[in-house]
Amino acid sequence: MKLILDLDTGIDDAMALAYAVGHPEAEVLAVTSVFGNVETVTGADNAAAILKLLGREDIPVYVGAKRALDADQDYVQEAASGIFHGRNGLANLDFPAGAPVQDQDAVDYLVDQARALGDELTIVTTGPLTNLALAIQKDPEAMLSVRQVVSMGGALTVPGNVSYFAEANFNKDSKANNIVFDSGINMTMIGLDVTLQTLLTEDHINKWQAGSPAAQAFFDIVSYYFQAYDSSYDELRGCALHDPLAVSVALDERWVTGQTFCLRSLSGDQEGRIVQNLPALADGAEPNVRVGLAVDGPLYTRHFVETIEKAF
Amino acid sequence: MKLILDLDTGIDDAMALAYAVGHPEAEVLAVTSVFGNVETVTGADNAAAILKLLGREDIPVYVGAKRALDADQDYVQEAASGIFHGRNGLANLDFPAGAPVQDQDAVDYLVDQARALGDELTIVTTGPLTNLALAIQKDPEAMLSVRQVVSMGGALTVPGNVSYFAEANFNKDSKANNIVFDSGINMTMIGLDVTLQTLLTEDHINKWQAGSPAAQAFFDIVSYYFQAYDSSYDELRGCALHDPLAVSVALDERWVTGQTFCLRSLSGDQEGRIVQNLPALADGAEPNVRVGLAVDGPLYTRHFVETIEKAF
Repeated sequence: MKLILDLDTGIDDAMALAYAVGHPEAEVLAVTSVFGNVETVTGADNAAAILKLLGREDIPVYVGAKRALDADQDYVQEAASGIFHGRNGLANLDFPAGAPVQDQDAVDYLVDQARALGDELTIVTTGPLTNLALAIQKDPEAMLSVRQVVSMGGALTVPGNVSYFAEANFNKDSKANNIVFDSGINMTMIGLDVTLQTLLTEDHINKWQAGSPAAQAFFDIVSYYFQAYDSSYDELRGCALHDPLAVSVALDERWVTGQTFCLRSLSGDQEGRIVQNLPALADGAEPNVRVGLAVDGPLYTRHFVETIEKAF
Repeated sequence: MKLILDLDTGIDDAMALAYAVGHPEAEVLAVTSVFGNVETVTGADNAAAILKLLGREDIPVYVGAKRALDADQDYVQEAASGIFHGRNGLANLDFPAGAPVQDQDAVDYLVDQARALGDELTIVTTGPLTNLALAIQKDPEAMLSVRQVVSMGGALTVPGNVSYFAEANFNKDSKANNIVFDSGINMTMIGLDVTLQTLLTEDHINKWQAGSPAAQAFFDIVSYYFQAYDSSYDELRGCALHDPLAVSVALDERWVTGQTFCLRSLSGDQEGRIVQNLPALADGAEPNVRVGLAVDGPLYTRHFVETIEKAF
């Protein structure tokens, strides 16, 4: 399956990228970068560094939007993101630089690939939906022709992780969320509803310490991520597999069960909250966003570990 | 189907009761009363008056809990409930008194019927879950043997109607919600997720004006309810069919589609908010609460009108 991964490469994005590289059915065409866990250029450099680590410098990296649609200045990493991912997004560790990023803008690249590949193309997003919204604005027909979009973001049936309501990705560009939701694109939302039902623990990763350089590097960055989880969530020894689960669902939708909704993203006091769009339903809108609501967490985690190790 | 209706009889409870009386497959064994739209005794008197109006004084009414489990005084009607239902719960209109309420406590009656009928018994709740929680505490084995509970309450995928989070019924006794959720009882939650996808309008009820005394009375109280909706929701000419939909789903689960969850009710800042119970899932709890997430609103409203008119 042809995938473009639209990442804000911090630690779980890096895990999602390695998982995709390791998955025998995934053909990763490119990484497009957006702001979120880190600034957009940093995220692009991180993706390139991870690809070099994995021996996949052939996969190009494109730099996308540096700010939310309504923002008046470029995004700067928030403190909470730094705690979870490190200031550089990769646990404050130094990685050898990967191949240079591409000159073409990520949004233009997305549109070009949608035009060229249509329903052969799957896009996975693990950050704010800004790049995707811009691509839809640029060529809605081409973008709606893609096979599917699978997005890690949102929290429909559980509390948020940056407010009572909102999840960190979908909190950062509510306008972009609504452009994507309203476009009618074939989309699956993998939110905290399901990602928090997965748990990677020390037992899963300890053997990476004595493995290849890639395995060791992932042991280091994931251990850092565990520490942030430890200090933020009582009793949790490990981390949720947020971004990897979105890649997995893109490759096999049966990982989750759920329901198809018409969604909207709220603004103001409830910024970034994802709810059913009842006014649109009343006006006859068709539900178009499948939302993952349940997952077999232990089964998924075993699959994730087996698959990412193929990339090491 | 043998039904006990656990009501806090305001206007949409009265509609639910008349709908059940009109439904050819519903055998209404009794009404049990709880606080909510009005005080418990007022609700019981309202139910009795509606049953007299419908010529069904043979259906007994039982008085249940007068306060939430953790409350230190009896519930007093809140201002918002008065706006929607009138101070007396029935649009401030005078109705001839119905048959006297029963001496037995509603909770004892629920337990007795559960013991006697087991899986022949369906319980529909349209107010706080206090009576049901007390019955479960008194005899969990008997209560878990009932066929099902269908409850109007909660808001899982949409904002609440008494706070950003909470729906009016499930906001009033969060402790009772958790006793019921944790009991493992076979339950369906009919929350704002689906009830706000239904809409009864003036066009549906205008012909009741020239009908039987019962039809005319329902025209009057429902018109009052419309006015409250008009002043509370922009552009909405009519009302949602909150409580009737729960009765309908009890009689035919196919009215809604949804997903089965493990749920919990939050307290404190997010009082009465219903979310997936992720810690319980992580401990291996089985999802047991089916939540309605979608309904064909126009189709349902037509069915509701046809059915309630059989009671007039």
